[in-house]
Amino acid sequence: MRSEKLSEIYRASGADVVYVTTDYLLRYLTGFYATDGAVLLDGERCRLIVDARYFEGAEKALWGTDITVVLRSAADTPESLLKDYKKVAIPFALTSYPEYAALKKQGYTLVDGMPALREAMMIKSREELALIQSACTIAEEAFRELLGEIKEGMTETEVAALLEYNMRRRGASGTSFDTICAFGEGGSIPHYETGDRKLRFGDPVLIDFGCKVSGYCSDITRTFLFGDDKKHEEFKKSYAEVLRAHELVKEKVVAGMTGREADAVARESLKRAGLAEAFTHSLGHGIGLNIHELPVLSPRGETVLRDGMVFSDEPGVYFPGKYGIRIEDSCFMEDGRVRSFMKLTEKNLVIL
Amino acid sequence: MRSEKLSEIYRASGADVVYVTTDYLLRYLTGFYATDGAVLLDGERCRLIVDARYFEGAEKALWGTDITVVLRSAADTPESLLKDYKKVAIPFALTSYPEYAALKKQGYTLVDGMPALREAMMIKSREELALIQSACTIAEEAFRELLGEIKEGMTETEVAALLEYNMRRRGASGTSFDTICAFGEGGSIPHYETGDRKLRFGDPVLIDFGCKVSGYCSDITRTFLFGDDKKHEEFKKSYAEVLRAHELVKEKVVAGMTGREADAVARESLKRAGLAEAFTHSLGHGIGLNIHELPVLSPRGETVLRDGMVFSDEPGVYFPGKYGIRIEDSCFMEDGRVRSFMKLTEKNLVIL
Repeated sequence: MRSEKLSEIYRASGADVVYVTTDYLLRYLTGFYATDGAVLLDGERCRLIVDARYFEGAEKALWGTDITVVLRSAADTPESLLKDYKKVAIPFALTSYPEYAALKKQGYTLVDGMPALREAMMIKSREELALIQSACTIAEEAFRELLGEIKEGMTETEVAALLEYNMRRRGASGTSFDTICAFGEGGSIPHYETGDRKLRFGDPVLIDFGCKVSGYCSDITRTFLFGDDKKHEEFKKSYAEVLRAHELVKEKVVAGMTGREADAVARESLKRAGLAEAFTHSLGHGIGLNIHELPVLSPRGETVLRDGMVFSDEPGVYFPGKYGIRIEDSCFMEDGRVRSFMKLTEKNLVIL
Repeated sequence: MRSEKLSEIYRASGADVVYVTTDYLLRYLTGFYATDGAVLLDGERCRLIVDARYFEGAEKALWGTDITVVLRSAADTPESLLKDYKKVAIPFALTSYPEYAALKKQGYTLVDGMPALREAMMIKSREELALIQSACTIAEEAFRELLGEIKEGMTETEVAALLEYNMRRRGASGTSFDTICAFGEGGSIPHYETGDRKLRFGDPVLIDFGCKVSGYCSDITRTFLFGDDKKHEEFKKSYAEVLRAHELVKEKVVAGMTGREADAVARESLKRAGLAEAFTHSLGHGIGLNIHELPVLSPRGETVLRDGMVFSDEPGVYFPGKYGIRIEDSCFMEDGRVRSFMKLTEKNLVIL
């Protein structure tokens, strides 16, 4: 499986060799994580070059695979590693100008390997889906535990810290992005910065969070009420509409539709409810080793959705100075339909 | 103060304008954090260009400073922002090849702004020192609390998770690098990956950790014994030698010495104790918005140490398959002498 994907990337690059040094791409191509190293992928083989710190671990981890582990010596330079090749594919967007210039100076023909890599990374393997599932399960378990721990007077930062701790001690290596924890009016800012606001009875709470397992990300948002002060009729109506839009995406979006068409399913639903103006962002984004990757589910998303893609379904509505409501699952496409990774947390309105 | 530093960077760049888009440099130059934006620094003024998400917050935060906040319109491109200039300084190492090529194509003369930025960032202002002090205090308080919480049978990951939680809920925005928590033999690998090893009576424990406050990092390592099983005579002797080397650096290193000379103070001390071979890394590294920056305190460190520099003092010895011992404080140079940011945790051997 992995080997097939490697051939595909090599062929699509159109070069003699694909050369990458970015840590998440090393992980993607070999399954081994090193902060420092290189991968050389040509028509014959895939070599992972690491220094003494990583060599033994890599040898052990990649025993019996198609990947050859090579010990880098102090004398090795990018130029010496590439000396048997002429046309070299490097991911331009991840290559600094000095790195590019140094290779160019050596006379290599440089082509952009990024499109081939992005395209391949968009379709997840069984192993990748399993890792994302683990990251999603940990996030949901951590959130379920948090609901029993939240108390009046806690700050947004304290709640975020507790949630992150719940994920971390279940084996997540860290968060997949800065946790957004917003009480009340803070929720109306889609990229709110978690702060010192204290939780009060009756507050709507919006938490957008996720964690990493073996580099793979989860992404989830839940909105709930911390006590019902009976002033939330409008909130409840809007919540029901966001949930309807969220669920419609899972029902109606099928393989073959574009990201734009998927976005329109949620957008039209919120429009019918008179909430078009309040839905100020895109429906979703691809998720993998990066928290934002392809496909894009937005009015400008032209990618056709296919089996193996992983993306968020996250409609939201925002009322400045009042509150925001967002409901987000990490999802994947299987047998032409949208499936959610999230099975453990309630999406009907929770009132603590 | 800030304004003086900005002039200095502008002059040192030798260009008509310094143009940066990397988030940590935006923070450095303006004091405001945005994941997305640009700074244009010329001889007259410093402009921060942000989109609608950040505009209001930036205006409020930078009111009364020398920084002008400009709202970016959708039509703005790097080229349109730079149209009044000819010679543009950009940080080459942080500029991707496509970004470089796009500017080059517009006919700009591009020069590397990185040396001027790195040089300025090496000398911390009073405000920067205060933020690093906060990050150090939080790290120490979190560790002190941890010592009361550690129990036999906990895994390395559980201990790391607890420590990170202790930092996070004190207001740290996150860790400054992946926490290294190693029990027993794991400690002998300087860049050990925290795992599922369970804590046993008599284990040496090495924890290397830190957190961020307003982007600024702390870095600290403590080594201690989880119970004394009376088999630790060698360990205790080596611990005393590492501590001696660590303290000697604080005593003997003064402004005007190079990073190489500082490294030699610790290295000579460990050599006299017969531990030269076991000290397998450098004495220290600069700390700021990045966990590794200038100056370098190693046998190859040629930078002359000066007031306002912040760096780690972290001698360590490693005995493969047995244990490792490292003692690290984040320090700064003031009135020509080394001062430690760390005042709350014990450096004499702790036996829990």
